[in-house]
Amino acid sequence: MALAEKILTGDIRAAARLMRDIDDGFRSAVDELKILYPHTGKAYIIGITGPPGAGKSTLVDQITAAYRQRGKTVGIVAIDPTSPFTGGAILGDRIRMNRHADDPGVFIRSLATRGHLGGLSRSTGDVVNVLDAMGMDVVIVETVGVGQDEIDIVSMAHTTTVVMVPGLGDDIQAIKAGILEIGDVFVVNKADRDDADRTVRELVTMLEMNPDRGRGWQPHVLKTEASRNRGIEELVDEFESHRGYLHDSGAIRHLLEEKNAKQFLEILRERLFSEVFGHIEVNGRFREIVAGMMTREKDPYSAVEEIVAERLLVGP
Amino acid sequence: MALAEKILTGDIRAAARLMRDIDDGFRSAVDELKILYPHTGKAYIIGITGPPGAGKSTLVDQITAAYRQRGKTVGIVAIDPTSPFTGGAILGDRIRMNRHADDPGVFIRSLATRGHLGGLSRSTGDVVNVLDAMGMDVVIVETVGVGQDEIDIVSMAHTTTVVMVPGLGDDIQAIKAGILEIGDVFVVNKADRDDADRTVRELVTMLEMNPDRGRGWQPHVLKTEASRNRGIEELVDEFESHRGYLHDSGAIRHLLEEKNAKQFLEILRERLFSEVFGHIEVNGRFREIVAGMMTREKDPYSAVEEIVAERLLVGP
Repeated sequence: MALAEKILTGDIRAAARLMRDIDDGFRSAVDELKILYPHTGKAYIIGITGPPGAGKSTLVDQITAAYRQRGKTVGIVAIDPTSPFTGGAILGDRIRMNRHADDPGVFIRSLATRGHLGGLSRSTGDVVNVLDAMGMDVVIVETVGVGQDEIDIVSMAHTTTVVMVPGLGDDIQAIKAGILEIGDVFVVNKADRDDADRTVRELVTMLEMNPDRGRGWQPHVLKTEASRNRGIEELVDEFESHRGYLHDSGAIRHLLEEKNAKQFLEILRERLFSEVFGHIEVNGRFREIVAGMMTREKDPYSAVEEIVAERLLVGP
Repeated sequence: MALAEKILTGDIRAAARLMRDIDDGFRSAVDELKILYPHTGKAYIIGITGPPGAGKSTLVDQITAAYRQRGKTVGIVAIDPTSPFTGGAILGDRIRMNRHADDPGVFIRSLATRGHLGGLSRSTGDVVNVLDAMGMDVVIVETVGVGQDEIDIVSMAHTTTVVMVPGLGDDIQAIKAGILEIGDVFVVNKADRDDADRTVRELVTMLEMNPDRGRGWQPHVLKTEASRNRGIEELVDEFESHRGYLHDSGAIRHLLEEKNAKQFLEILRERLFSEVFGHIEVNGRFREIVAGMMTREKDPYSAVEEIVAERLLVGP
């Protein structure tokens, strides 16, 4: 039986194995994903991002507990920075959220950001598809950071949550503005800190400057203390409220079109590249081009145009 | 006369225009870059990254002043988060580093991280090539953030500088570990803060855990107070020391091979994608696929394989 069929019968080990195959870039994983795809589209996907130190992991842990109490199963994809010394994710599956370790209604997968170029948002999308096909009611995608990759990744979600924390430094205003556009829900965590209310006011003020204000969904700013489990029920209620809005307003259709387009284009981009790179690596062309660049006898722009003209792509 | 020829004669306006063309994705920019490429490879490239609030912009400003005093010209590429409300970079060229505005030996270019998928590290590489061909002695690439994009971008540098700041939050250990591998020089800025020495000690301890320790370059941890111009000369000396090491040890060759390979692959990846995307967008195929995904009648994995099999690429 194919891995995909086992996964559809609820086989957790098969799911874990397919996720490893995806991570390792095995071509066979694509065939499994094709089988799973028609069974996706049912999970509610929540993206959570924010700067380092905002307490996102603790927050995800509490949100998971709250959804479990409401009888929902939860899949979690945590994008972790890789330790260069251990080769694995630092906040690996083992040490993350131990209290959910024995709960079959929770499936946690850490994806390490290795040093390679691109590909992370594609494999994140693939893993979300696996969790979705497994029948997880809620899938939480958590990223550490506020860069473009993180924005691409959380944009796979139905509801994007931006976690801030009181008292960050100088260019936090810039960061805030960069993520205002993507947030459906804003959270000021560690709300017991002195300057929490000021951070909330600043966020509210910036959101009010949005020219789209008054049309569609208006994001709120919620306060939480994840470590003391405060504000979590209200946050989950807000998620459900946004989910309700998406369906009632019909906004879900446009959102899904964008999500699907993005996922397709990510897969296309990676596959085109890996096909052509496979060719030129094997036939020595790649090394030849880099050698030519070293002496400046070859420029990379012309080299790329020559390769494009040769139509190196082959069928499956 | 082509833009590129004007740039080679020192025409600042032509350089600014080509950078805008690169930003806007004009195909003509590629032809200019082909002409410039043989004139690149002379600039010393310094990458600067670190979390928000570390004071990187002030540091870059002081490093620029220090290099100017040493008689060197300086090009700066600053990767800024985009404001969704203004459409432009927030810390735009205008408000950045005004004191260098009238100095013809300094050229500053901000690149905004727009919402689009990928491409930022490719256009950053193109802009660095323009600054290099213009004859800038030193090129500084500054990114806000510590995500994978930022790591890809700073890895274009000869010398990668990681700026930390005392007293960041919980998952800073993870972030630190994720960037230890890429740093040649570590800076604890805002070193007047109480816990600066603790941050320095932590960094030194983590660097000592590196199994590669004892081979090649050993990164040091320097303290600066950029806002009071303290520690800057020592930092610039450290840059020059690393540069000297690269050449004396012969490590420069392997580094340049990696840099060149990365730049070529980035250009290849973007060009393959834009060629094929252009086709399927124009002929309606793209919309058809997304519509099929909406109903789950089409899966994106099979759609991509079909496209790959069709060899849609065309010559220039």
